[in-house]
Amino acid sequence: MRVGVDVGGTKVLGVLIDEAAGGAPVVLGRIRLDSLPGAAGVTGQVVAAVQGLCSSAGVPVHQLSGVGVGIPGVVDPDRGTVSHAVNLGLVETIDLGGILAAELGVPVRLENDLNAAAVGAAALLGLARRDLVLLALGTGMAAGLLLDGRLRRGAGGAAGEIGHVTYRADGPLCACGQRGCLESFASGRALEAAWLGRPADAAERREGPAPAKVVAAAQDGEPWAVAVHETFVDAVATAVRVLVLTCDPEHVVLGGGVAGLGEALLGPVREALVRQTEDSPFLRSLRIPERLALVPPGSEPAAVGAALAVPHPEHQEVLWRS
Amino acid sequence: MRVGVDVGGTKVLGVLIDEAAGGAPVVLGRIRLDSLPGAAGVTGQVVAAVQGLCSSAGVPVHQLSGVGVGIPGVVDPDRGTVSHAVNLGLVETIDLGGILAAELGVPVRLENDLNAAAVGAAALLGLARRDLVLLALGTGMAAGLLLDGRLRRGAGGAAGEIGHVTYRADGPLCACGQRGCLESFASGRALEAAWLGRPADAAERREGPAPAKVVAAAQDGEPWAVAVHETFVDAVATAVRVLVLTCDPEHVVLGGGVAGLGEALLGPVREALVRQTEDSPFLRSLRIPERLALVPPGSEPAAVGAALAVPHPEHQEVLWRS
Repeated sequence: MRVGVDVGGTKVLGVLIDEAAGGAPVVLGRIRLDSLPGAAGVTGQVVAAVQGLCSSAGVPVHQLSGVGVGIPGVVDPDRGTVSHAVNLGLVETIDLGGILAAELGVPVRLENDLNAAAVGAAALLGLARRDLVLLALGTGMAAGLLLDGRLRRGAGGAAGEIGHVTYRADGPLCACGQRGCLESFASGRALEAAWLGRPADAAERREGPAPAKVVAAAQDGEPWAVAVHETFVDAVATAVRVLVLTCDPEHVVLGGGVAGLGEALLGPVREALVRQTEDSPFLRSLRIPERLALVPPGSEPAAVGAALAVPHPEHQEVLWRS
Repeated sequence: MRVGVDVGGTKVLGVLIDEAAGGAPVVLGRIRLDSLPGAAGVTGQVVAAVQGLCSSAGVPVHQLSGVGVGIPGVVDPDRGTVSHAVNLGLVETIDLGGILAAELGVPVRLENDLNAAAVGAAALLGLARRDLVLLALGTGMAAGLLLDGRLRRGAGGAAGEIGHVTYRADGPLCACGQRGCLESFASGRALEAAWLGRPADAAERREGPAPAKVVAAAQDGEPWAVAVHETFVDAVATAVRVLVLTCDPEHVVLGGGVAGLGEALLGPVREALVRQTEDSPFLRSLRIPERLALVPPGSEPAAVGAALAVPHPEHQEVLWRS
């Protein structure tokens, strides 16, 4: 057995998974903790997640074949270091892999969270060809690239930074300093801002997170929400189109918190892709709408992918590497 | 010795190169023939190029370790087939590799011309890390991706089709059926069209191909040319920026016919990238202008790269593959 942990800005999500190679990974247990900031906070919560999962399953920690950790920021998997994880309060480079391995007494492997999610999504969806882009619509928008079965990490820490491709040059100022970035229109933060800025006479009765509220208001035909939703969907579809016209992945899998919308996200984005490509025989030939998929609802792709990144105890190689 | 042949819509370019692995490839001879359409035309001109090079160097064809052919269209290097090479009059799938091997009596390897150019550019520039996008500004705009030392061919024949990313949604109709594609503003065809559509009072005295004429007119301050040139440069810089924010290559190398402009292309595009990134600390941190390079002037990257794709006679592996 092995554990995968997805360390996010608000929550730490752990899964205990079965060792068996091949086939879809079997999740034996799940845990969710609040995130705590800084090196001590991150380390402590990962350790707590591992101990909680093992305790709950009656498995001693030292019997795990390893622990994989998916974490935002610039990760060097070979050295086990992470830096620039600003949302976690980790600005300096820290040897998180080494610290965790010493505390837990088992092998620990670090991976960027989006890369881990791409690996996890391929496994959870049982894709025959591990060639996909995981387009994460979370607080922001970014992608993990698993191309020809290998993670494309990039030369300068920018691989998959599709959220900062310009969508409308006259759009709002992005935190990155540019104007009109895709993620200013197509992200959890964008929908949250639209919900907070809704007209005074907007219906107030809805429950759930901001994306669900905006979608519900759009479905009810409230004009402000219809406009926000149309732009949101068009921007997501644009991101998909740009990813296909550059990296040409077999699959584009929508993930991140906003993907919790499920079919209410997938359906409209697919329709927008049909609209965006129908006038072009060339784009039609690329069958972009058919490449679109969703991470399985309620699944933990980043935690599962992180677990899969741990070398297998018998054949001593990373399960998902070619 | 080996031969590489770059089959284009107007010309067939061959190089005879030295076998020595490691270091920059040494070009011992060059040949240029007009293209002829259809399977018979393409086959005949490749054979003629190989025979011409060998005859000129006093080397029997059967002593070549192999011939590499870079060709537009959808290429299956393992099967030696090519299809959809519309500009060459090859619509059906043909076993060009098999036909040529039978005619020449030596191993033949086919590669997509942009992929071959990416491999050739890495070799000609002597890049320590073979991680680059070759952004070809030819008749159209498209890219070859050599990422982590491996060609990224893509799942559906769309890898590197950056020329069909939208630049201005209200722009002119592209041959692909979309409006305002990057290549409608940043390609040889775009500059040719601008030159043909120049105002009646534009200066007529200039020599050379359309891109050079437009640049010269812009340098002379002719307003129509200044406007065309500014948009052209901005669109090339946009393509570079999108490639970095998706694939994150260590280098973006400008190639294709328009790259014959040399520093008159590289300088303005680099300046545009500085302008496009200076307001964003994030983009500045990616050092995009520093990633930019030009194929060596007068070199034949696609022909050289095709030659390098032929398996080495001794260690029997493709020289540039990891």
